[in-house]
Amino acid sequence: MTTRAFDVRQSVQFDHRRRLQRAAEEAGERGIDALLITPSPDYLYLLGYRAPVLERLTCLVVRPGAEAVLILPRLEEPLARHELADLADAVALIPWEETDDPFRLVQQLLAGSQRVAVQDQMWARFVLRLRAALDPTSLVEAGPTMSALRRIKSADEIDRLRNAAQAADAAMLAITRERLSGRTEAEVSARIRALLVEHGHETADFAIVASGPNSASPHHHPGERVITSGDALVLDIGGSRDGYGSDTTRTAFVGAPPPEFAALYAVLQEAQRAACEAVAPGVPCSQIDAVARGIIEEAGYGEAFIHRTGHGIGLETHEEPYIVASNPEPLQVGHAFSVEPGIYIGDTWGARIEDIVVCADAGGERLNTTSTDLYLVD
Amino acid sequence: MTTRAFDVRQSVQFDHRRRLQRAAEEAGERGIDALLITPSPDYLYLLGYRAPVLERLTCLVVRPGAEAVLILPRLEEPLARHELADLADAVALIPWEETDDPFRLVQQLLAGSQRVAVQDQMWARFVLRLRAALDPTSLVEAGPTMSALRRIKSADEIDRLRNAAQAADAAMLAITRERLSGRTEAEVSARIRALLVEHGHETADFAIVASGPNSASPHHHPGERVITSGDALVLDIGGSRDGYGSDTTRTAFVGAPPPEFAALYAVLQEAQRAACEAVAPGVPCSQIDAVARGIIEEAGYGEAFIHRTGHGIGLETHEEPYIVASNPEPLQVGHAFSVEPGIYIGDTWGARIEDIVVCADAGGERLNTTSTDLYLVD
Repeated sequence: MTTRAFDVRQSVQFDHRRRLQRAAEEAGERGIDALLITPSPDYLYLLGYRAPVLERLTCLVVRPGAEAVLILPRLEEPLARHELADLADAVALIPWEETDDPFRLVQQLLAGSQRVAVQDQMWARFVLRLRAALDPTSLVEAGPTMSALRRIKSADEIDRLRNAAQAADAAMLAITRERLSGRTEAEVSARIRALLVEHGHETADFAIVASGPNSASPHHHPGERVITSGDALVLDIGGSRDGYGSDTTRTAFVGAPPPEFAALYAVLQEAQRAACEAVAPGVPCSQIDAVARGIIEEAGYGEAFIHRTGHGIGLETHEEPYIVASNPEPLQVGHAFSVEPGIYIGDTWGARIEDIVVCADAGGERLNTTSTDLYLVD
Repeated sequence: MTTRAFDVRQSVQFDHRRRLQRAAEEAGERGIDALLITPSPDYLYLLGYRAPVLERLTCLVVRPGAEAVLILPRLEEPLARHELADLADAVALIPWEETDDPFRLVQQLLAGSQRVAVQDQMWARFVLRLRAALDPTSLVEAGPTMSALRRIKSADEIDRLRNAAQAADAAMLAITRERLSGRTEAEVSARIRALLVEHGHETADFAIVASGPNSASPHHHPGERVITSGDALVLDIGGSRDGYGSDTTRTAFVGAPPPEFAALYAVLQEAQRAACEAVAPGVPCSQIDAVARGIIEEAGYGEAFIHRTGHGIGLETHEEPYIVASNPEPLQVGHAFSVEPGIYIGDTWGARIEDIVVCADAGGERLNTTSTDLYLVD
């Protein structure tokens, strides 16, 4: 009956009442009359449980100075009452029947609103129907409001990111100690997924295994190619632990790396190290990107570094802040993000090194602790 | 680096060139100048591979009488070239760099368009930025156009749905033969996920285990409740096989069911059977719902059947056509959908029976073949 539901529930240690209040205040400060939050990481952040992402409208309405309201299909009501038991006086439930029009319920609730913000990942079909129902209210993005709350991680959240990183590190060490040549990328990817779970993730979310020429494709889908001596091997793996994500990349080489690859790798390792060391409160995100990119350009590989240096991480694997040339935002204590430069050479080979780094008063703290050296594997 | 990427690739046996052509024609007939398709089941249907669903814009543009164009981040280009090797002359790639504005690329491509349709699940942040870039072009839903193609399943697609149903049936039989009392819902759910994969699914997508009073919550999240004698037990399970979904529900009872439960179950079983038998080309979807609902209402449980009777299934677990009172659409040969009435009594217990049914010339064919009797378990 349900579809691709998330099963991992977040522990109740977070203060969701406070988060709802802060979201309402933040919206108010931005001149937003209401936030419309469909099931998503924002919904999880505010309410503490993952509602299924479905074609029936489930929508949390957060307004400055008013009670939060959850509009939801009647069949979801028992689950919501169960999950929101501790928030019963803070969130009013409005269930709708299968033949009702839920957009009319939103319309009635928001009569007179001027500016309504929709959750970043809300489905287009909902956005277009809300736009029709709420016309002439202007619809804007809820992303900046929600990100203002979510981008600064609390100590509890950083602990979870650290635990997730440790689990990913253990999986990475385990796979790099196995014999990899003679196995297909898909087989090694499946093995990594099992290792991610074995070492403490609730779910394995991705396990890129890109071998030989495929290592030059940053988002390669592991396939039937058999790993063989002389291959570069990019392993980019991650999962979720206690609701928070891990994401780490290491590069391996099957057999002895040729001098050209070793030279390329030395540049990459230096770029990644320098970028991690540049992390400090007040440093612009663009500057972290510039540090990594500068070293790679200097060595003549500028054209081969075809993506940004990193992305924030938390409830989502990719979130604010983005470590990219176009983002002047200064780093703050509590920002958590990847630092992952890569060098990709045509149809020959590629390499990437990725750590999750937290910005602290004293500078960047790497949550991943495995060596960034090239892993020599059989 | 990536996030929650889909790893299952669809076999290349489908004719994606033809699908692209049909989508362009269907759009033309509906007065739509362009379809904008971000990574989603529609994208998979048209191009045959799952691109990661990410914050960077990847957007397939399909226009009547023009070549298809794929706007995508440069780092996704190697993957796309690899996956689209057979469609190289049918899809032009326009990669954008990390600091480019991809919405401007869409704007340039669609200059002069009057009506542009956006994929149903496109993220709100993309919809709002497209709306700004394309103003005053009107944005409409691409759902009806894509669904016109996808709702009629080919023989190959029905084979896949049948294989997926068989795998789910095998998992269901296996779990109902195990001792369940003394185990938590979460443990049994994890076991079902393993069984779904063991019996041939690539991914286990959901495994609702709702015991005792929780069985009255249709979308219950399996938790720490220990299953015990006297519990009703709703098991709603499914996964993906060869890209297509399975979804089946059976109800079990731990120990001997009391007469009230047996009476309720007999009504439900009759309602589900009659609704399956009512399936035939030309019968309105609403009529299938009415058949099940009528029998349940007649027996006095009308208020306890709190959801529609079913949903289409294919690349998505929930898709058109919906078997709901408000849908007058006549069934056609090739429609595939669930028939899953349920009866939920307050905090006491609930029951649901679900089969996937395909509409054929001769009537409905159940793809699930396990008994719909109440399963008596220890």
